[in-house]
Amino acid sequence: MLPANKPIFVINYKAYETSYGHQALLIAKASEKAELEFSIKTIIAVPFTEIWRISKEVSIDVIAQHVDPIIPGQGTGFITAEMIAGSGGKGSILNHSEHKLKIFEIEKGIERLKLNNLYSIVCAETPRSSLAVANLGADIVAMEPPDLIGTGVSVSKSKPELVTKTVEKIRNSGFKKIPILVGAGIVDKEDARKAIKLGADGILVSSIIMKSKEPEKKIFELAEGLNSLNK
Amino acid sequence: MLPANKPIFVINYKAYETSYGHQALLIAKASEKAELEFSIKTIIAVPFTEIWRISKEVSIDVIAQHVDPIIPGQGTGFITAEMIAGSGGKGSILNHSEHKLKIFEIEKGIERLKLNNLYSIVCAETPRSSLAVANLGADIVAMEPPDLIGTGVSVSKSKPELVTKTVEKIRNSGFKKIPILVGAGIVDKEDARKAIKLGADGILVSSIIMKSKEPEKKIFELAEGLNSLNK
Amino acid sequence: MLPANKPIFVINYKAYETSYGHQALLIAKASEKAELEFSIKTIIAVPFTEIWRISKEVSIDVIAQHVDPIIPGQGTGFITAEMIAGSGGKGSILNHSEHKLKIFEIEKGIERLKLNNLYSIVCAETPRSSLAVANLGADIVAMEPPDLIGTGVSVSKSKPELVTKTVEKIRNSGFKKIPILVGAGIVDKEDARKAIKLGADGILVSSIIMKSKEPEKKIFELAEGLNSLNK
Amino acid sequence: MLPANKPIFVINYKAYETSYGHQALLIAKASEKAELEFSIKTIIAVPFTEIWRISKEVSIDVIAQHVDPIIPGQGTGFITAEMIAGSGGKGSILNHSEHKLKIFEIEKGIERLKLNNLYSIVCAETPRSSLAVANLGADIVAMEPPDLIGTGVSVSKSKPELVTKTVEKIRNSGFKKIPILVGAGIVDKEDARKAIKLGADGILVSSIIMKSKEPEKKIFELAEGLNSLNK
Repeated sequence: MLPANKPIFVINYKAYETSYGHQALLIAKASEKAELEFSIKTIIAVPFTEIWRISKEVSIDVIAQHVDPIIPGQGTGFITAEMIAGSGGKGSILNHSEHKLKIFEIEKGIERLKLNNLYSIVCAETPRSSLAVANLGADIVAMEPPDLIGTGVSVSKSKPELVTKTVEKIRNSGFKKIPILVGAGIVDKEDARKAIKLGADGILVSSIIMKSKEPEKKIFELAEGLNSLNK
Repeated sequence: MLPANKPIFVINYKAYETSYGHQALLIAKASEKAELEFSIKTIIAVPFTEIWRISKEVSIDVIAQHVDPIIPGQGTGFITAEMIAGSGGKGSILNHSEHKLKIFEIEKGIERLKLNNLYSIVCAETPRSSLAVANLGADIVAMEPPDLIGTGVSVSKSKPELVTKTVEKIRNSGFKKIPILVGAGIVDKEDARKAIKLGADGILVSSIIMKSKEPEKKIFELAEGLNSLNK
Repeated sequence: MLPANKPIFVINYKAYETSYGHQALLIAKASEKAELEFSIKTIIAVPFTEIWRISKEVSIDVIAQHVDPIIPGQGTGFITAEMIAGSGGKGSILNHSEHKLKIFEIEKGIERLKLNNLYSIVCAETPRSSLAVANLGADIVAMEPPDLIGTGVSVSKSKPELVTKTVEKIRNSGFKKIPILVGAGIVDKEDARKAIKLGADGILVSSIIMKSKEPEKKIFELAEGLNSLNK
Repeated sequence: MLPANKPIFVINYKAYETSYGHQALLIAKASEKAELEFSIKTIIAVPFTEIWRISKEVSIDVIAQHVDPIIPGQGTGFITAEMIAGSGGKGSILNHSEHKLKIFEIEKGIERLKLNNLYSIVCAETPRSSLAVANLGADIVAMEPPDLIGTGVSVSKSKPELVTKTVEKIRNSGFKKIPILVGAGIVDKEDARKAIKLGADGILVSSIIMKSKEPEKKIFELAEGLNSLNK
């Protein structure tokens, strides 16, 4: 269930108009096709309401965009790891810069996911906090400088030192295998390629796919960028 | 789509172990049966992950337990009114005492639901704040004293004055038709009956159904209590 | 202790660089002078750290910018109504658009202030929520459309209908005496004058004083605007 | 300004009734006396409203219980590092289990304190998150298992392995000098002594002093416990 040793390509559906309904499924299907075509691991992070429906339709990993660090019981309007597993999800993003969490919620959330055989992709905004979330037990770390999100100016091109510093900090602290993703502003094949070249194990993208008029084409372009430097 | 002029019976699934999977569907089916049997309006508030699945299986209103007051776009891990509508939901609870909201989130959340033809059941903990949420535009108000939730000591028996005061405050401020629900500690037919007798238009329950070994029986008992004093 | 029947002039120090230290005291002294000169009630809302120091130096009401709705006991880093009273404060702002609160926190905060003989100035962003906070027990209501805060485009000139609607809603609901303040974008005598003319009982300002090179002059100008139409 | 190489004794005033007014000052004076008497570093964390007053009266470090990670400007009701410095504070607690923070708030809060020459005591609830906050840049780490806070059952006696594991994790990750405090349930000389023996550099206490009828006596007892094993 955990991502294999291939470049990881995470598409975060966020709450875009294309994140539910007909278009959401098309993007899922295209992502599945990309995983079959290229030597990459494709993961889609969909709204809670779509996990059930989409996971029934595709073979790639469908994950949640957040999980609440609570145990089953009271908790009106919150989502447990059990609910994600029960509806076909394989994991969850945690601490996205649009959904920042308390440090204990990250630690507890990771724990609750693990207990349900789900993996965590924990976001962080700096090299420093990337290491901190690795300390907290993240299965995958995703570093995204928040000021670049949605800008079209990619982290791999404009702030490569943040990528290398994140990789260095984490690898030098004894985490040899934990996959490290980078995101923010990634828009084309070259950005994806560059991320891998800088030492990242994959990318986390959103707007470039979700707001695209030809999402399938964009998915394939980015997948190809990841694939080209396959480790 | 808005609840008709019958006693309203809301079952809040919360995050109990029975709130997803097989048991969740059985409770939905029993609730549907109760609506057909008695002259009441039955509404089930399920986890986000279950709206799609359950709303395909029953004819009664399936609603969410919360909605985030955001517009489609960025918003990782949040749920828009559009997603609820898109997956078959008819409305949402807001401001439950386990999920308390800022005043602007309530106002905005109600607005966003209305724009998507969804109704809001807005919770409040006191007569005073019940009137305040009516001011904010709630379609249905649900008053629950938080210290009684899950206790088995019902608001209608132990604090009837809170029910009558809530009804009075709201009706005297010009809200003649807005349905007023009460909840907390309701466990049997008599509690349900008493709530209606005190002027409420329905009840909001959870643990007594979700933790029951015979949920169908309990649902029918409470439905009968509501039905007996049908207005 | 409660504001008298004069136009009310609240200066919110916020967290500006002038909100503490030497400049903070100068602004307090100028505000005191304005109260003596004009027939107005002047109130300054200072940072928690400044209540003790400033309240020892001026005779006008010094209030807090927020209060946490907790009782004395545990609560690391939170501020109780008792602490505000104990350091010389006379009340507190609640629910400012930069510090939005849950509806139960507003209700509880007002209660805790009252128990300590302190008054509440509860902010709201719309006419609808202004009435809601009046129903929650606010001593003074302050309506500020958040999109105008700090812009220099005053609510009284650019959205006069929001002022009149707020006044109407509150007065028509039986609150005959509760003072209603308006704020956002107020920069000159005419803005202040206009607010009173539209039915408000005072104004809430911040940046125009705190970022001014001649705060005393600005304070006097606004005070004169309020005074000119003294009710 | 940073604590010297002596056992560190932090008294967190929290929001107890003794945290402001007359009693607050007596406790400060007794803490100062203890620092003079024993070879320890004494720090008191007082409410924001008391920093000015108390720091004028004692020579020991007076710190805040929290700081908001914002820069001077807007920010109604929030406290900047500048305000703490300006009123005589020397640092701040961050992320206390009664005031849990988002991971970015901890990182940013530490940064803002440093910029104002203030030190941070960052709390964590587990060995894992203790290392994470060290990686975020904490000047001092304080580990407190939340289930023991205020119980009178001390962490050093009942969960010594949490203390040793925290010390190990932090020291083995290259942080040779960062002081590590432990807290929760510490009530007597032996608890203090034991904490130091287990490798901690000091203790963080609250209720045992703040709710004591003879706080001075208790302060001296704990100081003596720390002193006895002076490193």
